[in-house]
Parts: sequence; structure tokens; C-alpha cells
Amino acid sequence: MPLLVMKFGGTSVATLDRIRRVAKRVGREVANGYDVIVIVSAMAGKTNELVGWVEETSPLFDAREYDAVVSSGENVTAGLMALTLQEMDIPARSWQGWQVPLKTNSAHASARIEEIPTANLNAKFAEGMKVAVVAGFQGISPEGRITTLGRGGSDTTAVAFAAAFGAERCDIYTDVDGVYTTDPRISTKARKLEKIAFEEMLELASLGAKVLQTRSVELAMRYNVRLRVLSSFEEYDPNAGTLVCSEEEIMESNVVSGVAYSRDEAKVTLISVADRPGIAAAIFGALSEAGVNVDMIIQNISEEGRTDMTFSCPTNQVSRAKAAVEAAREKTLINFHGLVADTEVCKVSVVGIGMRSHTGVAAQMFGALSAEGINIKVITTSEIKISVLIDRKYLELAVQALHDAFGLENAG
Amino acid sequence: MPLLVMKFGGTSVATLDRIRRVAKRVGREVANGYDVIVIVSAMAGKTNELVGWVEETSPLFDAREYDAVVSSGENVTAGLMALTLQEMDIPARSWQGWQVPLKTNSAHASARIEEIPTANLNAKFAEGMKVAVVAGFQGISPEGRITTLGRGGSDTTAVAFAAAFGAERCDIYTDVDGVYTTDPRISTKARKLEKIAFEEMLELASLGAKVLQTRSVELAMRYNVRLRVLSSFEEYDPNAGTLVCSEEEIMESNVVSGVAYSRDEAKVTLISVADRPGIAAAIFGALSEAGVNVDMIIQNISEEGRTDMTFSCPTNQVSRAKAAVEAAREKTLINFHGLVADTEVCKVSVVGIGMRSHTGVAAQMFGALSAEGINIKVITTSEIKISVLIDRKYLELAVQALHDAFGLENAG
Repeated sequence: MPLLVMKFGGTSVATLDRIRRVAKRVGREVANGYDVIVIVSAMAGKTNELVGWVEETSPLFDAREYDAVVSSGENVTAGLMALTLQEMDIPARSWQGWQVPLKTNSAHASARIEEIPTANLNAKFAEGMKVAVVAGFQGISPEGRITTLGRGGSDTTAVAFAAAFGAERCDIYTDVDGVYTTDPRISTKARKLEKIAFEEMLELASLGAKVLQTRSVELAMRYNVRLRVLSSFEEYDPNAGTLVCSEEEIMESNVVSGVAYSRDEAKVTLISVADRPGIAAAIFGALSEAGVNVDMIIQNISEEGRTDMTFSCPTNQVSRAKAAVEAAREKTLINFHGLVADTEVCKVSVVGIGMRSHTGVAAQMFGALSAEGINIKVITTSEIKISVLIDRKYLELAVQALHDAFGLENAG
Repeated sequence: MPLLVMKFGGTSVATLDRIRRVAKRVGREVANGYDVIVIVSAMAGKTNELVGWVEETSPLFDAREYDAVVSSGENVTAGLMALTLQEMDIPARSWQGWQVPLKTNSAHASARIEEIPTANLNAKFAEGMKVAVVAGFQGISPEGRITTLGRGGSDTTAVAFAAAFGAERCDIYTDVDGVYTTDPRISTKARKLEKIAFEEMLELASLGAKVLQTRSVELAMRYNVRLRVLSSFEEYDPNAGTLVCSEEEIMESNVVSGVAYSRDEAKVTLISVADRPGIAAAIFGALSEAGVNVDMIIQNISEEGRTDMTFSCPTNQVSRAKAAVEAAREKTLINFHGLVADTEVCKVSVVGIGMRSHTGVAAQMFGALSAEGINIKVITTSEIKISVLIDRKYLELAVQALHDAFGLENAG
């Protein structure tokens, strides 16, 4: 029997009414002839409530107890979903992580999945169960304790189940109806993509298009799990949403698939750094230890043994970054003349697997920005992405101009 | 190391503040040299919320899913309690029912405990853990699914752990400070008992003194687990509360230990029942099938092949009882001339193990009631209890008169 994995996030199961609504979608796939594994999150707000209690009880909490507490929200939804399906005469039962068992390592609160044995669920499918409702976000450690998978854990759970059970597809139901060429709040011309390649989705996810957690896309790419992102609030449509899949499934790739942005970026420059071997390691080692999420890094040409070193990071980490490099200077690990931070910048990127085989994308991008009088402060490129830092006030203008320049409104 | 079991009910762990307060009591017992097993209920109100969701989702719910959902409340409290103890530098960890494992049969929603292996917890105690916090009310079935123990399940869990681990005592913390000679709301002369025998506690519990669930007292009596009932809201006092223990521990028993009552009783009489073998079985079989909780049963002397049959049941079950016997009459299973129900009665009982060796208690009881002009409608007796049905309007008067007559104010 073909198998589907369907994952419903917290807003999709926030009330008993919404659980009933999404259960109908599950029922439709059963009617279509599928066995289904449903992965559920906690009802919206429940996990935050539990996390709040843990943090209030113990600021430096034992992560094993944190996991035991916060995993309970998913268990509630799983049971309620199974009951709802049973009311619709669909043979269903709930599974908690340890019952499957979803085996993880012992990194509590951010555990990694190690194995999902299929025997237990498959035995029940063979007995006539049509839907296994699995509590997402949780597993069991080698020591027999409950683990949670950290941020985006339910998406990751869903993809891992799809990989382990060889599912035909993994449908991620959320509160948006797919992946767009850019943020529809910024450009009214934004168009929903029918398909997008894993690599593109990864770049978009890491750029702040928060449709899917990066980790789940990575896993899907590794195991070639076809992911569909769609809304649980839209009417049923077998072709709804956006399919995230391998490049090979996308007949003719666009050169550029989307325009992404990240609003709160800061550009920090260390001026006249003494340029010697190991200096970059010293600087970025210090920043990493301080928990600064460094994104772009640019080193200008060295003159007379000194160079300027520029990096970008989230705006709210600038003071931490300053403290870290000043501390490293005091310990004479690094030597520089001054530090300049520009906290009024943003990052705009164009992403597309077609860039691999097309040249001139960068020139076209810079030309479009130039035509709007937008000055580019920093540039970085990868195989399928070009990113620039620009003044934050130009964010919307730049996104709209690039969306137009690459014809994203009509492509596809 | 001597071991204590301490159980905290829902009101005792209703907030993070209250959890901190009871954790201090646990810490004091650790300081006194005990290893401790703490049994926790869900935070007050949580279980009702979960039960409400289940019932709204599925009126005729699958009890396996019910158990998976409603057991989650205890898991939250167990984790929070463990974290609170850790904050006090007490080595503690939480255990869910399946982790212990607390093994039950498969009677979901009202499972019976079959075995509590001690190896897992004892291994951790040997490693230096001082407190095992166990989620009450739950276990695991032979099929590996979560079970719950039904009403009073956390008290029962506590007693079962005390029996399995050979605890010195099982302290049941609740919102009352012990067992009284009668309800203090009815008699201001009510006195807290220092000790009470298991058998007496059982009679009082079944008579409506809702301090402990009958089931947990039965289990304590079978395994001779010393139970202490005390309030989590009073200041610490090593001699607080009431000890429920075996008769042998009570040096000199009072003839009567307490006066109990049950307000909402009804007396139902079937008039002129055709008296033949099997008639009682037919009547009470029909009532039992209809879910009527019959308490007292009295059959008057038979005359000319007919007799009057009287029984008592809760007031709100009278119409169900009527319907059941009328249906039995239509099916010609029984034959009677009429049915009279008196729904304005109550039951008052005196309880005491001393009755076994003292005569004249019944006469003294009837005399005390007679002196107040109270007419007795029905009498039943057991080895350590005498109960009467009287008009409900005399309830308070009767309780006070009996409390005085047996000198309960000053005894002990």
C-alpha cells in the first residue's frame, strides 16, 4: 500500500475544531488509497507554556527534565487526533516517540535522530490500521529517557519518517500555502512556486523564508524525500502548495527562482588588522565562542601587513561581537586599529539552481540595483545564490526591482 | 538507606510556587536521612481539561487514547518537581510510568497494578540519586501502551510503590490535615485522630469521608503499608496528620473511632414481593445491570408467600432503580404490588474496631438517637460499624449526639 506522511504544525491543531478539519484531510488521503503516518505538533501555545514553566523553575535547567516536560504537548495532540480519526471510522492509533521507537542520541533538547525501526508501525498497518498518529519533536535516548529534537523538530520528524518508511511524499501542512518567489508582503507580484529544488529551498530557508526548517530540508535532500508545503486552512486541492524535490524532477529550471531577504543585519568592520597567519581563525573563533552568528565574511586586500576585515551578523548581536573582539585584543590574540559597525543594513539575495549553467546573473542583479540608485556594500556568492548588503531603507525597493528584473512574476 | 514515599495531590502542586513549597518538605526528609520516592498528580485542573477534550472529541472514546492523553498532566508535574529539587541541590530525576516500569493489566482507564520492578530506581538510588519523582496515576500495559489507574490512581500508585520498595511509611499530602472523629463542618467538637486502623479507615472512606480512596487503603492493608495523611499547607511537624496503620500498632483502641455520614441516600421499598428462591438475585441483578449502587438491603419476614424488600441507594439513582425493577416486572422476572421511595433520608454510622470486643454499642447508639427523638428507619451492622437511615433533617443533630454519646471529643 502506498504511504504518505502528513505533518501538521501547532496552528493547524490549535483547537478541537481545527484537529477535526485536518483529520478530514487525512481521511481523504486514506480514501485515495494511502496508509498515512501523521506527525503532530503541540496545540499552538502549549509548548511555550511548558518551556516557560521549566525556565521559571530552573534557569539552568537539566535538559533531560526539560525534554520530559515539553514533550507532553505533542502526546496530547496525538491522542486527540487518533480519537478524531476513529470517530470518522478510520482505524487509527497514537504513538509516542518512545513507542515507535524513534531512537536519538543523548543530546537532550536538540537530539539527532539515529534510527526509526519500522517493525512496530508496519505490524499495525498489516493488521488494518490506516493511520499512525505520531507525536512529533520527540524520541528516546540510548539511556531510555525522552529526548526532543529542538527547533523545527516536528518537520524533521516528518521527513525522517518519510525516509524510513519510503513514503511517496511528505506533506508539511502549515499556515502559508507554499513557497513564493519572494515575500508577498513586500511584492504584490510574488508568485507561488509549483516546484522548487532542495538546494534552492535550503538557501531560501537559511535566508529567512521561514516556511521549512533548514534541518528538515537537509534531511529531505539527503534521502530524496519529496516534500510538499501547503496550507491546512485552504480548501482541498491535490495540486496545492509547493513541491520541494530533487533538481531532476524540475523539467526546466528558472535561472532565478526567488528573491529572499534578511532585514536585521549589521556590518562590522575591523580596521587595519595586523595580517598574519591565523588571524581570521583568532577573530572568528572568538566570535563563535561568544555565540555570534557570523554570516558573510570579506577580507580586503592586504597593504603593508595590515588589512580590513568585514563581517555581517544579526543587529542584536553587534554589542556581543564588539565585546568579543575587544577581549581578544586585550589578550593580544588580535591587533586592529578600530571597529566600525553599520547597523542599518539588510541582506537581499537571488537564488536559483539555473545560475550554475547561466552566466551574467550577478551583472544583471547589480545593474537592476544600480538603476534604482541602490549602493551595494558587500557582495558574497555561492553556486546558486548571490547576496548583497545594502542600506536597510532600500530593502523593499531592492526586492521589487530584482523580482521584476528576473521576470519572476510570469516565469514558471 | 531508609525510604519514604511522599504523594502530593493536584492542589498541592497547582502552581510553581506550591511545587517549590512541597519540594522543601521533600528536602527536609532527605536531610533526615531518607531516600524518597515522590508521587505527583497533575496540576489542579489539568486532568479535567484533558478529560474534557477527550470527551468532546469522542463521546465513546477509545480508552487507550484517553489514557495516552490524560496521563500527560502527571508527566509535566514530575519533570517540574525534579527540576525544583535539583535547584535545591538535591539529586533528583523524573520517571514516567513506562520508565519505572509500573506494569498494569490492559484495563485502560481503570487499570490494575500487576508489578513494580525495583531494579531501575534502585540502581539510581545506588548511584546517589536521593529523590525519584514518579508520575502518578499511570502505568504500561503488556502491549506497551500507556494505562491509567482510574479514580484515586495517584494514592494507589503511592501505596504500591511503598509496598514494592519496602518504604518505612507512605505520606499522602492532601488539602486536609488528617482524619477526624467526624466532619468538623458538622461538629465543632470533631477531633483529629492520631492513629486509625486500616479497617476503620476503609469503613470511613466508603462512608464518604473522602480523605483517601478506598482502593489505596485496601492495598495498604494488604501489604501493611503505614499511611500518613497530612496537609501540604500546614507548617512542617514530624507528628502531623493521621497515621493509618494496622490494629497492632494502636495500643488501646477506642470502642468507637468516628461518626460518618452520607447525606444523599434514598430508601426504596418493593411492597409485597412474591417470595420465591432467586427473587433477591433477580431484583439486585437488574439493579446492578442498571448501574444502581445499592448499599443497604433489608428483607422483612415473609407472610403468606410475600415479603417487603427494602434497599438504599444514592438519591439521584432512584429513577433509574424504579425503571430497572419495572422492566424486570414486565419481563415477569419479579412480581410485586408497589414501589415506595423515600428520598429524604440520610445515613449515619459509627465505626470502631473496638466494637469487636465491646458489646452494647448498638444499644448506646439507638439510645442516643432516641433521646433526641430521632426515628430509625433502617439498621445494618458489620463487625466494626453500625449504620442507620434516618430523616435527612436530623443529620447534623444525629452526628453531634453520637459524637457526644461516645465521648469522641476527649478520647484518644
